[in-house]
Formats: sequence, C-alpha cells, structure tokens
Amino acid sequence: MKPPSNPHPLNDSVTTLLQEIRSKSPLVHNITNYVVMNNTANALLSIGASPVMAHAPEEVEDMVSIASSLVVNIGTLSPLWVDAMKLAMKKASGLGKPVVLDPVGAGATPYRNAVLKELLETAPPSIIRGNASEIQALHSAQSKTKGVDSTIASESAIDAARALSNTYGCVTVISGAVDYIVSSDSIAEVDAGDPMMAKVTGMGCTASAILGACAAVEDDRSKAAYSGMMLMGMAGEIAATKAHGPGSMQMHFLDALWTLGS
Amino acid sequence: MKPPSNPHPLNDSVTTLLQEIRSKSPLVHNITNYVVMNNTANALLSIGASPVMAHAPEEVEDMVSIASSLVVNIGTLSPLWVDAMKLAMKKASGLGKPVVLDPVGAGATPYRNAVLKELLETAPPSIIRGNASEIQALHSAQSKTKGVDSTIASESAIDAARALSNTYGCVTVISGAVDYIVSSDSIAEVDAGDPMMAKVTGMGCTASAILGACAAVEDDRSKAAYSGMMLMGMAGEIAATKAHGPGSMQMHFLDALWTLGS
Amino acid sequence: MKPPSNPHPLNDSVTTLLQEIRSKSPLVHNITNYVVMNNTANALLSIGASPVMAHAPEEVEDMVSIASSLVVNIGTLSPLWVDAMKLAMKKASGLGKPVVLDPVGAGATPYRNAVLKELLETAPPSIIRGNASEIQALHSAQSKTKGVDSTIASESAIDAARALSNTYGCVTVISGAVDYIVSSDSIAEVDAGDPMMAKVTGMGCTASAILGACAAVEDDRSKAAYSGMMLMGMAGEIAATKAHGPGSMQMHFLDALWTLGS
Repeated sequence: MKPPSNPHPLNDSVTTLLQEIRSKSPLVHNITNYVVMNNTANALLSIGASPVMAHAPEEVEDMVSIASSLVVNIGTLSPLWVDAMKLAMKKASGLGKPVVLDPVGAGATPYRNAVLKELLETAPPSIIRGNASEIQALHSAQSKTKGVDSTIASESAIDAARALSNTYGCVTVISGAVDYIVSSDSIAEVDAGDPMMAKVTGMGCTASAILGACAAVEDDRSKAAYSGMMLMGMAGEIAATKAHGPGSMQMHFLDALWTLGS
Repeated sequence: MKPPSNPHPLNDSVTTLLQEIRSKSPLVHNITNYVVMNNTANALLSIGASPVMAHAPEEVEDMVSIASSLVVNIGTLSPLWVDAMKLAMKKASGLGKPVVLDPVGAGATPYRNAVLKELLETAPPSIIRGNASEIQALHSAQSKTKGVDSTIASESAIDAARALSNTYGCVTVISGAVDYIVSSDSIAEVDAGDPMMAKVTGMGCTASAILGACAAVEDDRSKAAYSGMMLMGMAGEIAATKAHGPGSMQMHFLDALWTLGS
Repeated sequence: MKPPSNPHPLNDSVTTLLQEIRSKSPLVHNITNYVVMNNTANALLSIGASPVMAHAPEEVEDMVSIASSLVVNIGTLSPLWVDAMKLAMKKASGLGKPVVLDPVGAGATPYRNAVLKELLETAPPSIIRGNASEIQALHSAQSKTKGVDSTIASESAIDAARALSNTYGCVTVISGAVDYIVSSDSIAEVDAGDPMMAKVTGMGCTASAILGACAAVEDDRSKAAYSGMMLMGMAGEIAATKAHGPGSMQMHFLDALWTLGS
C-alpha cells in the first residue's frame, strides 16, 4: 500500500458529473454476477445512484424502461441469464438508454466468447470495460485469458480497444494500473488508483457499475467513462491510505466513494 | 451522520425477545435475493439466530419442516424461485410456522405484481415488511415505484398497510425514517434508526430476516415485528455513531447487532 | 473474543506452502453457494490465489481445464448447478486435478443427501471438508443436522471421517473448535482459530476454498489440508484480537490472510 498521500484532486468536470449523479440519483439496472452484486449495489448507493438488480426475462424489459442505464456483466453467466441480457440490451438500445458491457473472463472459455459475440450482435453497447486480457480476447478471440485476472499490461490492448470502439461505435475502457478510455478518434488516460484494488474481488465490475451511473447523467460517453474511472481511482487511492489488507480496502473504498468531493 | 449520542435504550420486552433468540438460536429459512444473502445471513448470526438459505423446489419443504420460520424475499426473483417460494409458504402455513414476506420492488414491473399476487393467494404471510412505495403498490398495484427505493413517506402508506393486514390477517410493517407496525386493530411506531441505513444495500431485506428471527420466538406478531424493528433501529443508531460511510456502516451494523443489550 | 495474544507462529512447512500460493497464484475454480461467493473470492485473493466462479454446464469443463483445482460446495444447490458440479468433478478427476468437496447442510434434507451421493459416485474428491454434523451425515445419512451449523463436537465424527477417507481415497477434514485432518492412516489436529469465526457466515466455505488453493500447490493432501486449516485458524486468531463483532471479524479476517507470515 502507498503511504498516506494527497490523492489527485477531482477536476471540475468530474466534480460536476458527481454532483449530477447525487442530485438525480439515476436508477441503474444491473444484470451482473453473483459474486459482486452486494458490492456493486453498495458502490452505486455510495456514489449517489440507485441500483436495481433484476434478471428474469419476464421483467428485464420493464425494468430497463424505468431505469436510466443498463449494466450487463457476464461474470457468472448461464443461458437463462444470457436470454435476459439480450432482451434488456435490445430494449435499452431501442429506448436510446446507455448500456455498459463488462466482458468478464472473455477468452477464458469458448462459451464466454460465443455469448459475447451474441450480445454484441444483439445491440451495440455504449461503453465496454474490461481488463487488458479481456479487451484483447473480445477483439481477437485468439488471446489467452487466465480466469478473470489480466495477464497483460493495459497499453498492449489499445489497438484492440480502438478496433472495438470503431466496430460498435462505443467507447472502450481498458482498466489496469493505468486506465485507457478509447473511442474511435480519441484516447484518454487515468493514472489513478492503487494496486490493492486488484486484491478486492469485483473492483472491475464495480467500475462498470459506476460507469453505468456516469453514462446515465452524461451523454458524452468518453467524458462519462473518463469521469467514472477517475472517481474509481480517487476512491481507491483514498481507501488505500487507510486499508490494512483487502478486507478493510473493500470497506474504505465504499466510504471513500461516499465522501468523494467533500 | 448523527454525532455520537446515547441511543434509545432497549425496553424490557425487546430485551426479553432478544434473549429468547440468543438462547434458542432459531433456524430461519430464507428464500431471498442474491444481493443480500451474505448480509442477511450475517445479521441473523449476529443477533443469535441460525440462518439457512435454500431455494430448490426439491428441498424447500423439507427445509421449512426443520426451520422455525420462513422469510420470502422477491428481490431477484425468477420463475423457478417463485415455484420454491410457493411450496415453502404453503408448507410453512400448513405447519403453522411464521412467514415473513418482503415484496421488494413491488410495483416496479408487472411481473413482480403478478408474482406477489400469486404468493399472497398461495398462503397468507404472518408479517409483510416493505417500504412505503412497496406497501402502497402491494395494496393497489396502481402506485408507481422507482426501482427498489421508496419515493413516498412512510405514513402515507398506513391505509394500504391496514388494508393488507385486514385482508391477510397479518401484521404489515412500513419501514422508513419512522417505521409503522400495522395490524387490523393497532398501530405502533418505531422512531429509531439513522438515514445512513438507506445507503447500505439490503437493509430492508435484513429487517425482514430479523423479523423472521423474532417471529420464530414470539407468537404475538405485532410484538415480534415491533421488537425486530426496534433492534434494527437501535443497531443502526449505534453503527451510525461509528461509521464514516456506507462501507463502515455495514460492518458496524453487524457488530452492533452482536453487542445489543450488553 | 480472546484478549489480544500472540497467536501460534506458522511452522516452516505451512509458511513454505503459503509462499508457493503467493508465487504461483493458482487459479481456483469454485462452484459454490450464493451466500459466500464474495467472501470466498476475497479470501482466495487475500491469500494470493486467483479465484474464478463459473457454474454453467456449457463452460465448467473448459474452466476446470485452465484451473489448478476445483472447489464444489452445495450450500445453495439446485438441479442445474448439480449438473455442472458433476461435469466439473468428472473433468477434474480425469485431468488429475485436486477437487475439494464441501457438503454444506448434509443431512438437513433428503435432496442434499441424494445429491451428495451422486457427486461422490461421479468422481471421488481429493479432500472433503465439513463440520462434524455434516461429516457424520455424509457417512451415515442417519445423523440429524440442524440446518448448516453443527450440533455435535468435532471428535465425535472422527470414525465417520476415517470411513469416508477409506471409501473415497481422500482426506476428510472435520472443522470445529479443533479441526481434525483424517486420512485412511493418519490423523492430525489443528487447535487454532477463535469462536467468533462461527459467527461469520461461510467461514467453513472459505476454509474449503483455501484448501482448494493449498491442494493446487501441494500434492500431499494431508499436508495441504493441514496447512489450509492452520492458515484459517491463524488468520482467525489475529482477526479476533481486533474484531468487535461478526462484521469487523469478517473484515479483519481478510486483512489477516493478506498479512499472514509477514
């Protein structure tokens, strides 16, 4: 862990977006994995958004209709859930609502690759966020992924990210020690955060959920993605100054999201 | 957060009920949502009960048979789970065991409304607990719910709560800044707790689980419900004096349940 | 809780195994229950392993193929998950990869007993870990289990454990105040840990996950199981000196796993 330090101050546009989330409290509909549901719901509450988790094909379209954005995360996927993801993505797309796709473990199994192909063909996401291995695998399906943790450095996936952004007209975020926010014609870096974040399960999933909150209040997807990753990184830095391991890191991270900007 | 203060002392009957839970350690069978399972299990352990989570139609009736109470929560419902809920509620009802129903997100989608109708027709619950929006929606199906968070004040749902209590011969709890425990012929208020509780996901679900533990040891449903909401509120107040945000609130809340009354 | 004390020092072979986990970061594939997924993933990360949770029959064989070990836990079982468990156990067995079986709630319902029989017939596990009631029930199916918590003392299940180890050629761990690691021809005791561990949901499940990490780097199953239970016990003792209840116990436990041996 880093010694206590003065973390990056939030810049004005990030602060404005954070205030928007807190004042509008957008409903973010998550179809996500079992491992992280509690944490991502708490992260959304901590930043000021209102989370809802619902995955039954019988209701996801209705839930998308009252939500401000949709976050789809394939961490613990199964066929029935994939059906729901497709229905929800199609509905959100039809309604012009932002969709964040988190391709957890892309490349780890053929099934994940096939499902991701299906999802991307169903409706283009607004933002894709993954680690470098996942972004690489999502692009090429040739890359090798070790489970759900990245085995390569973020910058090595930039070309893959740009290709994805071109193909789907989206913004692709590669998260890692440095985060890259890649659109078809721009690239931004976020050099915030702390290595301890990788020792808390689902920090990437939490980032995707936060991006869902940001995209709900900011139409410029690059700006929404940049702001979301900055908020994550800042909260991570604050939490790391107080944490003594992954357990307290998880707790302080939520507290830090709550107090960001104050 | 409130400044450190002297929280409400537990009154004698609440203390007695708490001691009953701790000495009998009743088995509380939960069919609940993915988001809160860990927290509600920990809350039940912290208060002295013994939680079990089981949802397979193949075993829920057997599990109900060895449990002291049943808690049904539709937070992340799907058809197979609804089948299990119905089997379990019918079995519990037949065995005369208390059933707590948590209508999470009632009114948010037609599917939720339809499922709640089915559940209520299957077997009347002993206690219903929801926020004001949910209680209103459960009564009228005309009320508008925003996801899973309430958009109206608790007291505005008192008439709906009384109607539900009349129809199903149960006690209905409206939780919020002030909690109302409404039976067909009585109403009690619990003015305990802290606003930070609403920033931790599943606090309402936790309340329902705690009510399951209380109903397991106390036949008077109004008294069980009142005591459960007092225990929640007291633990919330204690936790809020120590918390620095939603993350530490969640942790201190469990610790506070553990130390209540000591 | 115990007063702050000097917990057992790790002996050399346990320290060596811990270093192996941290340097190799083995991928541990978990098919486990909803209640504990977050905690067990965090415990695996905290000790230095890399967790993955996947349960779709469509991908579990592929996931097992890239993993170093498999942990199967029936806490919140249902038929589709059982199908996946069988496929994964068969695959792991064929590949010679270690399998840890956690028979949560064995004896509580006929369905659990039937599923456990099926799983054991599909492929013999390398390590079985349960509390005394579960081990007894797994052996006899006559024993009475109260939900998921043990109702008998660990030592009373030693004969059952030895019989299981003989039948399946595995090592059976009875966890409790004292843990017993029982093979067909040996028995070892671990007298570490703290009573507060039983007040955090899924501590047993976490132990099984940690055993999965240990078995991934150590071929001697008794040694792997002994080391895993020692690591659990040590972390529990350290955490208990800092905890004020089940909430902070859970947090400090993860921090303690992280700092073990340093």
